[in-house]
Amino acid sequence: MIKITLITIGNEILLGKTVNTNLAFIGTQLSNNGFVLTRELTIPDDQPSIISTLNELWAKSDTVITTGGLGPTRDDITKKSIAEFFQTHLEFREDVWNDIKLLYRRKNKPIPEIVKTQAQVPQGFNVIRNSVGTAPGMHFQTEEKNFFALPGVPYEMKPMVTEYILPFLRKKYGPKEFYCKTIRTIGILEAEISQLLDDIKSTPNTNIAFLPKLGLVDIRIYGNKKDEFQKIIRKIEERLSEHIYGYDDDTVIGLCHEKLMHSGKKLAVAESCTGGLIQNLFTNNQGSSNYLEGGVVSYSNDAKMKLLGVKESTLRKFGAVSKETVKEMLEGVRALFDVDYAIAVSGIAGPTGGTREKPVGLVYIGVNIEGKLLVKRFNFSGDRLQIKKQSAENAIYLLLKSIS
Amino acid sequence: MIKITLITIGNEILLGKTVNTNLAFIGTQLSNNGFVLTRELTIPDDQPSIISTLNELWAKSDTVITTGGLGPTRDDITKKSIAEFFQTHLEFREDVWNDIKLLYRRKNKPIPEIVKTQAQVPQGFNVIRNSVGTAPGMHFQTEEKNFFALPGVPYEMKPMVTEYILPFLRKKYGPKEFYCKTIRTIGILEAEISQLLDDIKSTPNTNIAFLPKLGLVDIRIYGNKKDEFQKIIRKIEERLSEHIYGYDDDTVIGLCHEKLMHSGKKLAVAESCTGGLIQNLFTNNQGSSNYLEGGVVSYSNDAKMKLLGVKESTLRKFGAVSKETVKEMLEGVRALFDVDYAIAVSGIAGPTGGTREKPVGLVYIGVNIEGKLLVKRFNFSGDRLQIKKQSAENAIYLLLKSIS
Repeated sequence: MIKITLITIGNEILLGKTVNTNLAFIGTQLSNNGFVLTRELTIPDDQPSIISTLNELWAKSDTVITTGGLGPTRDDITKKSIAEFFQTHLEFREDVWNDIKLLYRRKNKPIPEIVKTQAQVPQGFNVIRNSVGTAPGMHFQTEEKNFFALPGVPYEMKPMVTEYILPFLRKKYGPKEFYCKTIRTIGILEAEISQLLDDIKSTPNTNIAFLPKLGLVDIRIYGNKKDEFQKIIRKIEERLSEHIYGYDDDTVIGLCHEKLMHSGKKLAVAESCTGGLIQNLFTNNQGSSNYLEGGVVSYSNDAKMKLLGVKESTLRKFGAVSKETVKEMLEGVRALFDVDYAIAVSGIAGPTGGTREKPVGLVYIGVNIEGKLLVKRFNFSGDRLQIKKQSAENAIYLLLKSIS
Repeated sequence: MIKITLITIGNEILLGKTVNTNLAFIGTQLSNNGFVLTRELTIPDDQPSIISTLNELWAKSDTVITTGGLGPTRDDITKKSIAEFFQTHLEFREDVWNDIKLLYRRKNKPIPEIVKTQAQVPQGFNVIRNSVGTAPGMHFQTEEKNFFALPGVPYEMKPMVTEYILPFLRKKYGPKEFYCKTIRTIGILEAEISQLLDDIKSTPNTNIAFLPKLGLVDIRIYGNKKDEFQKIIRKIEERLSEHIYGYDDDTVIGLCHEKLMHSGKKLAVAESCTGGLIQNLFTNNQGSSNYLEGGVVSYSNDAKMKLLGVKESTLRKFGAVSKETVKEMLEGVRALFDVDYAIAVSGIAGPTGGTREKPVGLVYIGVNIEGKLLVKRFNFSGDRLQIKKQSAENAIYLLLKSIS
């Protein structure tokens, strides 16, 4: 296994102004391709720090990746330091300059003088082209080692990792065979999963890891024997079928949005404890206006009665957080917006407002599929925001399952 | 200035499963107190990595802080490695064990056997007490240097930084005087601010930095001369007054929530392009049910007419994204929920749906304060989520200003 070091160059990370999401992205991409990030450093963007860090780590690593410090206003400290460390000098590259000119032409803007320095690259380095920004990526190769310098802006850095570095590393150092898949589950605890999968263990060729995250559990399987890998995935799918909502980058809201986009049906939502979160998740997706008519946040009992036609007697007899109330919300909101599908949620998000019979985290979630009602009871744990999030995700999943 | 090194111990960070938000927290806390984080490393939680990293960095640093690797299931690799590096051994600490027993008693749960190892601490180390988790923080002090080991769970780590490490460092190494304030602004660009503050520059004693972030610009001022510091703050306040919504940790939604909690008034919201986000932001706050009656997401024209009483002629003549439509939404939603205050928003979140006259990012935002209407026009830039976020923040700010 090659030793890969990531060096993040940036004062803004050390000052806490920016969270280092580039590290998480690069770590995930490497491990999804059979590599492991050995260590990461964050250092200030000054020449002594950059050079002394390269001095320490170049010898200890097979591959060094740097991100950041390549903006035009930084007086090119990073590039000069890299050139000095590798005992070369910066040269003006016509091909990079052409890319930059093209970028500004597309934006229909004049090129600031300062940007010209972006076309300078240490001699002997390959250029990793940047089609969305001015800073090129750079690659220096010796017989045994590789050095990559990438810009810190995430949308400029990411394609350089997926389209250049990963294919390069896979070809040069990667396992001949490598398979990786994440099975994504909802509504089942890690402990229940590990009981159900008790006899399915990691082997020398196939690794199985559970990654629980607030009501969702991802199961990550990777290995280098195709047959074994596929067999394990099939077994897990059989055991957990109803809880599997997707694979790899799938999300519950993304899948539900896609389904609704192609359904020709209309949706409305009645939210109590989720307080607008469900509608917010749908409307984050471009095109949601094709199916989402709208919805109501009926936080008060008055709003539930007046807008959704929930009966006062139902609220008195069963309470706002009850199967009966959610059923009437489902009927009310579908009629109000004249839609095919409806979602309704009522629960106690806390931290106060719970009782012995109806504790914080009790949530009723229902869907109305063209008049057919389904209401389920949930007990979520966590703080207010965590209960809202789990309620919203399970509501969207209940709709997704009901229309699939 | 002392050299502070942060070592993050955790495979989950290197694998990209967890984003290192602890680094951002610690970096911010240090710089708000006149210190600078010199470098950060992320390493795997195995003994060779921990010991070799301490070997490299202890000599080069005045203070080393580690986070992570202190959970009970990790077989105490981190604690053993630390004890070995500092040539001491682990001892069972009765005071830590009492804290742990108290924690489980409060939770009303039996103590798992494995947790007992959490009460072991390297001999000669001070304990930093943990009231919300089982792993104690640890502090080792030589004449010249300090070593702190903290748990990685953010809500356990944070109070140890603010209540133990910062007071300790301030007392021992901090500048005699240090003043720091962040002035938070909305609705004004960084370029406009720097023009308005053209004659107010950083001095050797007072530093001024702009931190722009999606429609909000923070101005961070810190220094060691009280008079000069206060004078600069007063000057900035005079020039930017109407755009300053708060200071330091204030947020627009937090301030508006507090204001409404003590107002005795009721609020309802009518959202179009923000799609539920405004109501979601309000309902994230405990106690929002005291003032939020509810609201409507009127994504379609039908919903705007049927629920909010927007006239068909208004929609035809001026369009859904217009001052006139927002005015009718404001009147409709206030009547529908029978409230004192209302917010209404209509705009084009994109990325499609824009025209030459009404481009993506055009948003009308209005408030109804007991019958008095105020509608403002905004042109936001960014992607769909960024336009939603800026719209919601400016809507909440408009309400806050109108009722203050």
